[in-house]
Amino acid sequence: MAVSDALYAIGGKWKLMIIIAMARGNKRFTEIQRQVTGISARVLSSELKELEQNGFILKKVAVGYPVSIEYELLPYSQTLEEVVGAMTKWGIQHREKIRNESKKQ
Amino acid sequence: MAVSDALYAIGGKWKLMIIIAMARGNKRFTEIQRQVTGISARVLSSELKELEQNGFILKKVAVGYPVSIEYELLPYSQTLEEVVGAMTKWGIQHREKIRNESKKQ
Repeated sequence: MAVSDALYAIGGKWKLMIIIAMARGNKRFTEIQRQVTGISARVLSSELKELEQNGFILKKVAVGYPVSIEYELLPYSQTLEEVVGAMTKWGIQHREKIRNESKKQ
Repeated sequence: MAVSDALYAIGGKWKLMIIIAMARGNKRFTEIQRQVTGISARVLSSELKELEQNGFILKKVAVGYPVSIEYELLPYSQTLEEVVGAMTKWGIQHREKIRNESKKQ
């Protein structure tokens, strides 16, 4: 099923959050880690590798001392705009629902 | 961030797949498990509990012998239509991309 293909490629807790953090201009490992609350360096490193393999991002290594590494969003990551938009919209209304429920208690 | 709220409630590998399986008329545990390829009974049971706690589904126990249990989608699960639609659309085009890439090799 198409949704399971989508979930396989961008599912899990972190991938969309990493792409959003990068879309906001964060390119270095530590910058991205700071943006994505709760992610460990080990997990971020493996998620970045998967995103690279799936063609969402590019790892750029600038030769010099010290070596500097930056991550760049590739055009393919823009195909996620509608998914991220729908999830953002849903997240906002879900937050509202929970807030209203807690007021009733 | 709203997306992280969404990912917290419906993220992970299985929740959207379970909701889609139920939207296709599957109400019993074994029916749902058969529809969601690869999910174990233990994981399905805990995912159903979380979906119930988040107000997406209702567990209905019919008293009698043997006891019969059915799961029903609650109206709140319909708020996910746009997210599932966007993910389905993305999944289809992702599958196309992978198919074209494998033709080139």
